[in-house]
Amino acid sequence: MITLTTDFGTRDPYVGVMKAAMLQRLDRIDIIDLTHEVAPFRPEEAGFWLQCCRAHFPDGSVHVAVVDPGVGTERALLAVRSQRQLFLAPDNGLLGLLCQTDPCAETRRIEVAALTPWRIATRSATFHGRDILGPLAAELAAARCQFEQLGPPAQPDPGRLEPARRLADGTVKGVVAAIDRYGNLLTTVDAGLVAALPRPQVHLGQRQFDLVRTYGEATAGAYVALINSFGVLEIARSGGSAAAGLAAEWGANVTVASKR
Amino acid sequence: MITLTTDFGTRDPYVGVMKAAMLQRLDRIDIIDLTHEVAPFRPEEAGFWLQCCRAHFPDGSVHVAVVDPGVGTERALLAVRSQRQLFLAPDNGLLGLLCQTDPCAETRRIEVAALTPWRIATRSATFHGRDILGPLAAELAAARCQFEQLGPPAQPDPGRLEPARRLADGTVKGVVAAIDRYGNLLTTVDAGLVAALPRPQVHLGQRQFDLVRTYGEATAGAYVALINSFGVLEIARSGGSAAAGLAAEWGANVTVASKR
Amino acid sequence: MITLTTDFGTRDPYVGVMKAAMLQRLDRIDIIDLTHEVAPFRPEEAGFWLQCCRAHFPDGSVHVAVVDPGVGTERALLAVRSQRQLFLAPDNGLLGLLCQTDPCAETRRIEVAALTPWRIATRSATFHGRDILGPLAAELAAARCQFEQLGPPAQPDPGRLEPARRLADGTVKGVVAAIDRYGNLLTTVDAGLVAALPRPQVHLGQRQFDLVRTYGEATAGAYVALINSFGVLEIARSGGSAAAGLAAEWGANVTVASKR
Repeated sequence: MITLTTDFGTRDPYVGVMKAAMLQRLDRIDIIDLTHEVAPFRPEEAGFWLQCCRAHFPDGSVHVAVVDPGVGTERALLAVRSQRQLFLAPDNGLLGLLCQTDPCAETRRIEVAALTPWRIATRSATFHGRDILGPLAAELAAARCQFEQLGPPAQPDPGRLEPARRLADGTVKGVVAAIDRYGNLLTTVDAGLVAALPRPQVHLGQRQFDLVRTYGEATAGAYVALINSFGVLEIARSGGSAAAGLAAEWGANVTVASKR
Repeated sequence: MITLTTDFGTRDPYVGVMKAAMLQRLDRIDIIDLTHEVAPFRPEEAGFWLQCCRAHFPDGSVHVAVVDPGVGTERALLAVRSQRQLFLAPDNGLLGLLCQTDPCAETRRIEVAALTPWRIATRSATFHGRDILGPLAAELAAARCQFEQLGPPAQPDPGRLEPARRLADGTVKGVVAAIDRYGNLLTTVDAGLVAALPRPQVHLGQRQFDLVRTYGEATAGAYVALINSFGVLEIARSGGSAAAGLAAEWGANVTVASKR
Repeated sequence: MITLTTDFGTRDPYVGVMKAAMLQRLDRIDIIDLTHEVAPFRPEEAGFWLQCCRAHFPDGSVHVAVVDPGVGTERALLAVRSQRQLFLAPDNGLLGLLCQTDPCAETRRIEVAALTPWRIATRSATFHGRDILGPLAAELAAARCQFEQLGPPAQPDPGRLEPARRLADGTVKGVVAAIDRYGNLLTTVDAGLVAALPRPQVHLGQRQFDLVRTYGEATAGAYVALINSFGVLEIARSGGSAAAGLAAEWGANVTVASKR
């Protein structure tokens, strides 16, 4: 399987021609759209979604992510191998969280000039998804090209998202890493970090939220915190948008501590 | 074929991971998106669209519909077999109209705890589409699982949409069951009910509309009623939105009677 | 491959049932969505996008485009064969630019009444994409039906877009033929016409723009002109919408001349 995560939207044919470029190299592959609505200047959000979703994809999956405000400039393209899946993206922080979270992740800087054996070259200055990353994903999925051939090892741009961490007093610190269409706030805090805390309470700005098991447990209009279906801490509002109601922004600090 | 009808939107990767869950079980199936934009609190609309679309799908198709404000609460999951197609959805009225329309429809209450032979279990409290209904659709489409194995017969929640009916004086009564992006009002009244009436005229609130054959017959800005491409009565506005112009809402009464 | 370009949107199940109609005739074909968000009254924009995208599709591809304000009226349906690809669309100007650009393009007027050998007929007055063009694309892609069998040669409606042209003084004249979601203005002027001009400068209304190689070369907020990834001249604004900032509309004149 190949997945796509971009900021292209679906109003224009950009996603379609990228798929055509892939399907011409690899007939009958499943190409799955994760999202084409990442905020254009927030590549880290695309990486966070990939980290949420990856457990639902089989070994050998190739994930292509293109959120690339710097297309056409000198920023590099990266390939990351982590837990038997491959990730292709610009080196702009998009894969930073994923690399920090998996100490075994391997990173290569893609040498585009060395991809000519696979008939991949810079055809345009502005559409690397269609011209480079998409075709490369197809070659990798077809096993006609190996991860090791892509270029030299590299250190990825860490980006603006760090893994959540536990402080000496047991408090857990993370941030809002994605806001979904319902206005739910998804955080970098995962279930394991919360599970270790007795009577966990979630703090965002001046507000506190108790942890519930499902949305259904909240009364209409109430805010709740819960471990969502991706296994990460989420702050939601029953029948409404937590993001709007709390005026919470991407990157806001979230703390989990034991209730006194 | 498997179809998906949800309120997940396409901004977040929820649809993508649901497809991944299905494709891992059933390689190379066609998964068709019907819509992911059903109004979240209107499961009946999803069921109405399924009823409109089903004639265009082959025998053996499995339709998965997830519009589920009560996810995580005690509401059941249903499977319905009707005219050689299967429908999976929460028991919240979504499949009520479909079951009332087909007296031969069979309904089972899905016993999730009994699905372990197919490696299906409640993995999360909030994403039954990905964890239960999607995988189950794949198993059913692959014929590794039979309808009869899903659970005991059940009576579905009828929901808020009833089939249109003919009164003793010949008048036909139905409701607005869906409003599409153009602002067209689709009703529960089907072509057969209208065909039996001489000189049919359509009533909505205080307004009357003559029946035309195509949108093209109306002058710009005019309201018309017509039998649409799904074979149901629709009220439309040439070059505009009937819903906006008529301030018509979902569930509004629509009557068809002979013109005097 | 088959591509779809429509104004159906993705909120309603119209695209899904059209795909179902095709997949029932041709199992396991790749159907690629180019866009379903063409402006409903601008069929020429759909044709322009097709012309941009066609180079990325293989020989034998069948492109179906349905932007059809006149559905149900007497307008014809057309098939065009150009450079080993097929295009199916209403005869309303949609394929006009494409036919004018390729002097070898062949056009047939589809005789719907003659399609009964392929079990294609007018089932509804308002959904020719599902009932005629989609099924026909599947038959053509499966090579069960030949272009020559579709109907007599025809002269397509030229529509409102003409190919860009070079005047006697070397100046190039074109128009804004599409506005994408970023507000970029795509024009009918292709790279070849611009390449012939020394020191090209782009004029739109009272404004002039220098030609750059990539978006990345512009300072934030600045307008630039560039040859985009489809090989056509585009006017863009760094970090913003050129369409909004310039109040530029579809069809606006664009001139390229040598800078003095």
